Amino acid sequence: MVEAQGAERTIEDLGEDGLIAIFAAEPVAPGSKLIVANGDDAAAFMLEPQYASVITTDTLVEGVHFDFAYSPPLKVGRKLMAVNLSDIAAMGARPRYVLLSVTVPRSTMVETATLIADGIREQCRAHVVTVIGGNTTRTKGAMVLTATAIGRVLTNEILTRRGTAAGDALYVTGHIGDANAGLKLSRSGRVPDPRDPLYPLFSALVDPAPRIGAGRALAKTGLVHAMCDVSDGLGRDLRRLLGPEGLGARIDARSLPISAALRRFAEESGEVAELIGLEGGEDYELVFSADLAQEAALFEALACTETPLSRIGFATASKEIEVLMPDGSSIPLPPGYDHFRRGNNGGVSSSDRR
Amino acid sequence: MVEAQGAERTIEDLGEDGLIAIFAAEPVAPGSKLIVANGDDAAAFMLEPQYASVITTDTLVEGVHFDFAYSPPLKVGRKLMAVNLSDIAAMGARPRYVLLSVTVPRSTMVETATLIADGIREQCRAHVVTVIGGNTTRTKGAMVLTATAIGRVLTNEILTRRGTAAGDALYVTGHIGDANAGLKLSRSGRVPDPRDPLYPLFSALVDPAPRIGAGRALAKTGLVHAMCDVSDGLGRDLRRLLGPEGLGARIDARSLPISAALRRFAEESGEVAELIGLEGGEDYELVFSADLAQEAALFEALACTETPLSRIGFATASKEIEVLMPDGSSIPLPPGYDHFRRGNNGGVSSSDRR
Repeated sequence: MVEAQGAERTIEDLGEDGLIAIFAAEPVAPGSKLIVANGDDAAAFMLEPQYASVITTDTLVEGVHFDFAYSPPLKVGRKLMAVNLSDIAAMGARPRYVLLSVTVPRSTMVETATLIADGIREQCRAHVVTVIGGNTTRTKGAMVLTATAIGRVLTNEILTRRGTAAGDALYVTGHIGDANAGLKLSRSGRVPDPRDPLYPLFSALVDPAPRIGAGRALAKTGLVHAMCDVSDGLGRDLRRLLGPEGLGARIDARSLPISAALRRFAEESGEVAELIGLEGGEDYELVFSADLAQEAALFEALACTETPLSRIGFATASKEIEVLMPDGSSIPLPPGYDHFRRGNNGGVSSSDRR
Repeated sequence: MVEAQGAERTIEDLGEDGLIAIFAAEPVAPGSKLIVANGDDAAAFMLEPQYASVITTDTLVEGVHFDFAYSPPLKVGRKLMAVNLSDIAAMGARPRYVLLSVTVPRSTMVETATLIADGIREQCRAHVVTVIGGNTTRTKGAMVLTATAIGRVLTNEILTRRGTAAGDALYVTGHIGDANAGLKLSRSGRVPDPRDPLYPLFSALVDPAPRIGAGRALAKTGLVHAMCDVSDGLGRDLRRLLGPEGLGARIDARSLPISAALRRFAEESGEVAELIGLEGGEDYELVFSADLAQEAALFEALACTETPLSRIGFATASKEIEVLMPDGSSIPLPPGYDHFRRGNNGGVSSSDRR
C-alpha cells in the first residue's frame, strides 16, 4: 500500500524543494573552471582564453512537441537535451553545461518528473555535460520544458550558417525523414513495438541523437564552409544555409539518405519517401557546404564517428532550390513547416531557433 | 478598417518568422567579443580572460506569475528581464546577454507579443544588455516566457550565498513586502491608479527593478560575505543565505524597510506590515551579510546608486530565525512560500531558482 501511494504521488504532495531535488539530484563539485553550480542565484564558470562560449535555448511543449500517450517521460528528457545539444553540435562546438527551466502542473506525477530528469541525466552523461542551474515553476496549462545549453569552441573553428558559395557541394549526415514518418505513425495511433520494421521511425521521433561527435570532427577539418542542424525539415534548413548568401541549390532526390524503414513506410502509405524527407522535421542531422574537391577528407573525418554522410546536391546562384525527383521530373522545394499557422501540418512541429 | 484588422491580428495570422522578428527586432552587430547572434543555431561570444560567465534562467507563466487582467504586456516583458537580471545582480555581476524562449498560443494577439517584446527591450537598453538568441514555440496552454541571462564578473568579486559567519550583520536593500501587498490588492480586484497612495504596491508587483548597480557596487567593496536576491520572500531567502552555514538569525522587525504605502495598506486591511514583508515575495531586493564594523563603507558604496539600505539584524549560531516584533514579542520566522503546495498562498508565487 505504501508502494502504491508512493507511485501515485504528485508534485503537489512533493513540494518545490522536492521537485528541484529531482532535477538537480547529482551534486556538482565546482572546480577551477566551474565556480558556482546549483543552489545559488546563478551559476558561474570560466573558459580557457582561446575559447568562445556557444549558447542556445530550446523548448519542448506537452501536446505540441511530445505527448505522453506515445512518448515515455524518459525519452522526453533525453529529447529535451538532444534538441539543445544538436544546436551546439551545429556550431562545431562541444557542449559543457546546461540550465533547465521546468514548468509543470501541480498534478504532475512524481514518477513522471523523475523519469524526465533521468532522461536528461542519461544524455548529459553520454555527452559529458553538467546541469549547473535552472528553475521550477508551476503552470495551470501544458508542461513546458526549456533547456539552455552552453558549449565551447576554439574561435577559429566556429561553424555558422554563413559562408556557402555557389558551386559548393551540399552534404547531410545520417538519414532524413524518419522522425516525420514516425510522427505520422504516432498520429495514426500506431506505436510500433521494437520488432516492427517501422520501429526506427518512431525511435527517431522520440529519441533523436545529437551529432556532437560529427560536428566536432567536421569543425576540426577546417573544410566546412557553413553548417546548421536539420530541425525543421531539410527543405527549410537548406534555405537557412543558402539564404544568407542569396543562393539556391540543385538537389538530387535520388541521393537523399532515406532509411529502409522510411522506404517501407512510403510504400505502405503510398507516399513519396523523398518528399517525407524534404518536408519533415526533427531529424537533428547536420547539413553543410564544402568544396567538392575536399570530399574525401570529409568522409575520412566522419569515419571515426561512424556517421553516414551523403552528398545531396550543389549550391547554385539561382536563388531557387530545385529538386530532381527519382522519376526524372524536377520540382521546386516544398515550402517548410510553420508551426504557428494552421493547415500547415505536413511536418513535425519542432521548436524553431533563430 | 485596415487599422482594425491590424490591431486584431494573431500570431496564427503572422506566422513564426513574424513572431521571431518581433522578439529579435533590433539587429545586433557581432563584434570582436560577440561572434554570432540571432539567426544561427546558437550564439557565440567571448569574455576577457579574467572574467567568469554568470548565467541564470527564470520563467514567468501566465495565470501564475502574471495575469493580463491586471498586468499590461509591456510590464510583463519588463518583469521577465527584471527577474533574470536580479539573479545576475545578486552574484555581483554585470549582465551582458540574454536568450529568450517564447511559448505562446496561436491565438495570442500580435499587439500583445509586440508589447511584451518592447518591455524586454526597454529593460535591456536600460541595463546595456543584448538579446543574442532564443526560440519560439506554440502551446495549447498558458503562455510561458523564459529568459536566460548571462553576465560577467571578475572572479575575485563573485558573491554567492555562502560565507556568512555568526555575528555578521544582515542587510537588505530598498523596501520589502510591497509586491506581496500589490498581489493582495490585485487579487481583491483593486487595481489602483497612479494617483492612489497604494499605487507603489501595484507597481512593485508588475514592474520590479533589478538592483544591478547596487549589486556591482557591493561586489566592488570586497566587504560582503554572502548575498542573494529576495525573490521568494525575505524569510525564505534569509534561510537560503544562512542555511549553507547552518546558522540562524535574530531579526528586528522594527528595522525592516516598510514603505509608507505598505504601512497604509496594513492599516487599512488590519494586517501586520512586517509580516507581509517577511512572508512576501518578488521584492527583487538584495539581502547580504557583512561585518558590522564595515557598515559605513557599505552605505558609502551604495550612496552613488541611490539604493536605500537597512540593517535588519544579525546572524547567530542558533539555527533558528527569531523575529523581534514591534510589540515586543518574539516569534519564529514564518515559513516561506511553496508555490507547488496548495493552501499555501500567503505570498507571491515567484518562479524559484535553485
